[in-house]
Amino acid sequence: MDPQVALVMGSYSDYHKLDSALEVFKEFAVEFEIRVLSAHRTPDETAEFAKTAESRGVKVIIAAAGGAAHLPGVIAAHTIIPVIGVPIANEALGGLDSLLSMTQMPGGIPVAVMSAGGGGAQNAALMAIAILAIGNSSLGEMLKTYRRLMAAKVLERDSALQWKSSEHQAQKL
Amino acid sequence: MDPQVALVMGSYSDYHKLDSALEVFKEFAVEFEIRVLSAHRTPDETAEFAKTAESRGVKVIIAAAGGAAHLPGVIAAHTIIPVIGVPIANEALGGLDSLLSMTQMPGGIPVAVMSAGGGGAQNAALMAIAILAIGNSSLGEMLKTYRRLMAAKVLERDSALQWKSSEHQAQKL
Amino acid sequence: MDPQVALVMGSYSDYHKLDSALEVFKEFAVEFEIRVLSAHRTPDETAEFAKTAESRGVKVIIAAAGGAAHLPGVIAAHTIIPVIGVPIANEALGGLDSLLSMTQMPGGIPVAVMSAGGGGAQNAALMAIAILAIGNSSLGEMLKTYRRLMAAKVLERDSALQWKSSEHQAQKL
Amino acid sequence: MDPQVALVMGSYSDYHKLDSALEVFKEFAVEFEIRVLSAHRTPDETAEFAKTAESRGVKVIIAAAGGAAHLPGVIAAHTIIPVIGVPIANEALGGLDSLLSMTQMPGGIPVAVMSAGGGGAQNAALMAIAILAIGNSSLGEMLKTYRRLMAAKVLERDSALQWKSSEHQAQKL
Amino acid sequence: MDPQVALVMGSYSDYHKLDSALEVFKEFAVEFEIRVLSAHRTPDETAEFAKTAESRGVKVIIAAAGGAAHLPGVIAAHTIIPVIGVPIANEALGGLDSLLSMTQMPGGIPVAVMSAGGGGAQNAALMAIAILAIGNSSLGEMLKTYRRLMAAKVLERDSALQWKSSEHQAQKL
Amino acid sequence: MDPQVALVMGSYSDYHKLDSALEVFKEFAVEFEIRVLSAHRTPDETAEFAKTAESRGVKVIIAAAGGAAHLPGVIAAHTIIPVIGVPIANEALGGLDSLLSMTQMPGGIPVAVMSAGGGGAQNAALMAIAILAIGNSSLGEMLKTYRRLMAAKVLERDSALQWKSSEHQAQKL
Amino acid sequence: MDPQVALVMGSYSDYHKLDSALEVFKEFAVEFEIRVLSAHRTPDETAEFAKTAESRGVKVIIAAAGGAAHLPGVIAAHTIIPVIGVPIANEALGGLDSLLSMTQMPGGIPVAVMSAGGGGAQNAALMAIAILAIGNSSLGEMLKTYRRLMAAKVLERDSALQWKSSEHQAQKL
Amino acid sequence: MDPQVALVMGSYSDYHKLDSALEVFKEFAVEFEIRVLSAHRTPDETAEFAKTAESRGVKVIIAAAGGAAHLPGVIAAHTIIPVIGVPIANEALGGLDSLLSMTQMPGGIPVAVMSAGGGGAQNAALMAIAILAIGNSSLGEMLKTYRRLMAAKVLERDSALQWKSSEHQAQKL
Repeated sequence: MDPQVALVMGSYSDYHKLDSALEVFKEFAVEFEIRVLSAHRTPDETAEFAKTAESRGVKVIIAAAGGAAHLPGVIAAHTIIPVIGVPIANEALGGLDSLLSMTQMPGGIPVAVMSAGGGGAQNAALMAIAILAIGNSSLGEMLKTYRRLMAAKVLERDSALQWKSSEHQAQKL
Repeated sequence: MDPQVALVMGSYSDYHKLDSALEVFKEFAVEFEIRVLSAHRTPDETAEFAKTAESRGVKVIIAAAGGAAHLPGVIAAHTIIPVIGVPIANEALGGLDSLLSMTQMPGGIPVAVMSAGGGGAQNAALMAIAILAIGNSSLGEMLKTYRRLMAAKVLERDSALQWKSSEHQAQKL
Repeated sequence: MDPQVALVMGSYSDYHKLDSALEVFKEFAVEFEIRVLSAHRTPDETAEFAKTAESRGVKVIIAAAGGAAHLPGVIAAHTIIPVIGVPIANEALGGLDSLLSMTQMPGGIPVAVMSAGGGGAQNAALMAIAILAIGNSSLGEMLKTYRRLMAAKVLERDSALQWKSSEHQAQKL
Repeated sequence: MDPQVALVMGSYSDYHKLDSALEVFKEFAVEFEIRVLSAHRTPDETAEFAKTAESRGVKVIIAAAGGAAHLPGVIAAHTIIPVIGVPIANEALGGLDSLLSMTQMPGGIPVAVMSAGGGGAQNAALMAIAILAIGNSSLGEMLKTYRRLMAAKVLERDSALQWKSSEHQAQKL
Repeated sequence: MDPQVALVMGSYSDYHKLDSALEVFKEFAVEFEIRVLSAHRTPDETAEFAKTAESRGVKVIIAAAGGAAHLPGVIAAHTIIPVIGVPIANEALGGLDSLLSMTQMPGGIPVAVMSAGGGGAQNAALMAIAILAIGNSSLGEMLKTYRRLMAAKVLERDSALQWKSSEHQAQKL
Repeated sequence: MDPQVALVMGSYSDYHKLDSALEVFKEFAVEFEIRVLSAHRTPDETAEFAKTAESRGVKVIIAAAGGAAHLPGVIAAHTIIPVIGVPIANEALGGLDSLLSMTQMPGGIPVAVMSAGGGGAQNAALMAIAILAIGNSSLGEMLKTYRRLMAAKVLERDSALQWKSSEHQAQKL
Repeated sequence: MDPQVALVMGSYSDYHKLDSALEVFKEFAVEFEIRVLSAHRTPDETAEFAKTAESRGVKVIIAAAGGAAHLPGVIAAHTIIPVIGVPIANEALGGLDSLLSMTQMPGGIPVAVMSAGGGGAQNAALMAIAILAIGNSSLGEMLKTYRRLMAAKVLERDSALQWKSSEHQAQKL
Repeated sequence: MDPQVALVMGSYSDYHKLDSALEVFKEFAVEFEIRVLSAHRTPDETAEFAKTAESRGVKVIIAAAGGAAHLPGVIAAHTIIPVIGVPIANEALGGLDSLLSMTQMPGGIPVAVMSAGGGGAQNAALMAIAILAIGNSSLGEMLKTYRRLMAAKVLERDSALQWKSSEHQAQKL
């Protein structure tokens, strides 16, 4: 089966920062292709990738990059497929540079930007699945289950902490 | 026909800042519903809106807000439908507040953020259409046409400016 | 006795960042409940918590969160009880995101924001106690004592440093 | 009757930026005193004001200031009464300076900070009332009514906009 | 004679912000071509422009853009000709977005960035001329004259102000 | 009598932004020289000015500049006389650029930086006078009077506002 | 002999960040007093310290603080002695908070701000000495020597690096 | 052969941050001189260096500095040779200070600014070579080869990652 999602990173060194996205795709059994393509070092291959994505059956593209972070914008310029941007935070400016470079796209060519740092990569994968779920109700059901499990985990922590805390306060008294 | 896109604003005063989104929807003949819902002033109605959106046939939600700008995040918490955020720039902090409030969502609940100021509203509408176009090839064709027209306009300006400039330089010589 | 303060965190991973708040409550023998509730992962439970807080006797709510940090704002939308926000600083943007997400609330629904990093959690607890002290003069007296002790500690350090310094300068001569 | 709230501004030129706070107090029939006191130009009077506030029956202090905006912090250093800070946005740095100067208080002396620009002054007044409402149930009821009216206004706008929009779309068809 | 400098803008609406660059080129009698090319709306034409610039005799490229401001980076990816970036400041974020989008280029593909706002366009033209002057000593002489005139203007203002001031002080005495 | 203070601006266009400094000097009858000198356009004259300032009897130098704002740092590099920097806020970045360019001097060459916007120029003049007052007790007395008048003005406003407010509240009752 | 400089820190934990200032004072044999005084925890002692500084013979005050960093401003409000501020950078916001809290003082009460991080403490001491040197020519001579040694160190490094580099390049050939 | 490029750093401690620039020069066999010169500690030597650079055959100057980072601007003030600035990121403000201090140069004296952190030093060297390549076609050819190798490396990583990923997915099935 053809991959429905393409996950592109601007530099191989960002690979480990995208683990949470890969996990999401595996959990949802969503086929994806993974690419290293640089908007600046391999501009022609990047353009070619973007231009042919639709015909290869790709439905959503996720592009992660740091610094000037042109990758999602450059890809979006060459395809009408929804492009999701994941800003990678670097040491120098804490990701503000890549966040602004991705969000502030000009009118006409949108990029859907996730968070710099934290859950950005995971959320990019979940957003891709939410988009695919529009035409795929079983994905939608899986997404609802995923959310229920996530909520259950919070509530479990909540109960544990409340119990621990009340016991603690009881001991104090 | 049911609206496929819901366009929500946190405050009626942001209405005129969303004109470009409305124009896009009209141009593409995409049915949309438009709502004023405040994550903070009408939290129950906002939750209700989000929870029922899927059953009402809504496929994509656009939420615009300024300042703390919780609207898209709060809506996303109640639905698996893709939520697109449009940060409204206010006078005090130039939109940095709403931009960060929207992008920095925790892992699990994504919001797809557009630009603060500039083409944010227009791009939210175009991103919604790009998402709908995945299962609607005629929308996809319209999107390609839209882009071609947009490109043509740039190239026309380019030609006009080159002509004007060379004439200007010629006169100088 | 019913807890008068509720301390809510958006993620269990923030628990250890709230230690100083817990210490303050223990020092002042203020009963509190502690919760893990996510504005985005458990929105209904968060709303339910906020809506029932008043009837459970809660007088002040402290909500700590990082990133988009909607928790205090979402809680404040569902209760008239004063809500104090503690921005948690993450690696990427140094807490500027959670600080702006909390402070820039729209007119009508206030959140009382403490510092990002540093003494934010401790101060949230002290602000809660200051609020409770309005109707509880013994709490007010304890708060005055707390401040005197704090001042004494500074002055003790001041004396020690002056002594050390003058001795040091004497040796030099 | 003694004023329960003191509203202090660092400069008379900020007076008109506090209108929305005054309106809230009038609407809720809350007595307040209003002062112009500069942390830097009149430090002794500011300290004196803060030290005597409790004995004069003041329950909550609101302090508004721009730039370095030390006023709420300086007042908080001299009283255990809850102090609410309203950052005034100036032209040069958009209020980021006063926002950070107010929020980043050291552990021990909290200030409850509202938004820079926008609804900051209104929210300071509402937060003061929420604090007073802890020991005054009729104020609490008024606050609930205030919120209901606020919600009603949003919903009214929502209805009007939906009607206008559907009519507009009908005409188009 | 072939133009040695190409001045490209991402949007025709930025044209009037580049006046000072045009004036510099006219003053130095440097031939230039002027283009409107959008990295996002006309990506292929932009790539084509960049790839053929060297063979058309262009020696330096100036690219001005606002917001995500990918234009100079995208051009630089397709040519080894030095690319100078001029960040255009927009209302929302004061140019910080375009400044960071241009400067934070990844290792391998440099862009030479000028100031956001102020003398950015003028300086881009002067930097282009300084580069051309390496192989053109008469341009270098003109640049030295330009600087001398600029210095003379400052010194003239200095004299006038000193004279005016001392006269003013004399009258006072 | 020789001027004891030199007031230097990087550009004549900043002249009117320094009015409040001139007023202070006139009020205190402090002789000053006023110069337009650009760290970048007239570097030799600027260095010469700085190197000869001490021998001309100048005791304190005030340097105002916007943007990269190197002027005070460049002057400080050439003299041991205390240099006070006044960051001029420009439209694009609200003065953050000049503020950081002035404050972040390397160890060894200090610049004493005033506020960007607001009272920066006035405070530069007052700081210069405070420095001169160390060796001139009558200047010190004038400074104390200046502060007393400033405090009186605040207190007068305070009284007027309190009176106006209580009258207003009385009418309401 | 009475200390001419007072070095005050808002928290004892900042002591080791002021080492470079102490070294400067020892190198120049300038007597100083060192204090721990908190604008917020010990406001009365801080005011008392400031008010009596002049009569104790103090000529310059250096105040270091992090976060809201009100210390130098609060001291400056109580004395006409020049106050130099040293912003201490904390983890959360990189010192931007303390930098803005110190620089953005209102017209009338200046604080002379040094850099956040880096050479801020060293420069505060050097600025204090530069101020004292106005009435003390031997201090002025020492300051000139200090600068010459500093320059010599740079030039020595410069020579060493040039030699190392040319040798390195020679080996390559 | 005379060095065509001068690489200047404001502080010897920045030496190791410029390694990537040195490597580029060695790879391209471009002769360079390397200097430690401080705009503030050795202003005269810096001016002398800049004024004589042209006559010594230097064609391009690279200047790296952190904090206030005046070095490239000060050099540019004394020569018409193109000056490339490399902002060094410090701990306190993440390089935003040096980035703004370098980019925001006034009209008339341009500095070509590279990225803060990341590939800034490498790109400065490549920009210098791109400038030299205008009059040196063999350098231009080397630059094209360098880019091809860089692209090849990305594509190799791309292939490896795709292979690894598809194998991984195959195992999963």
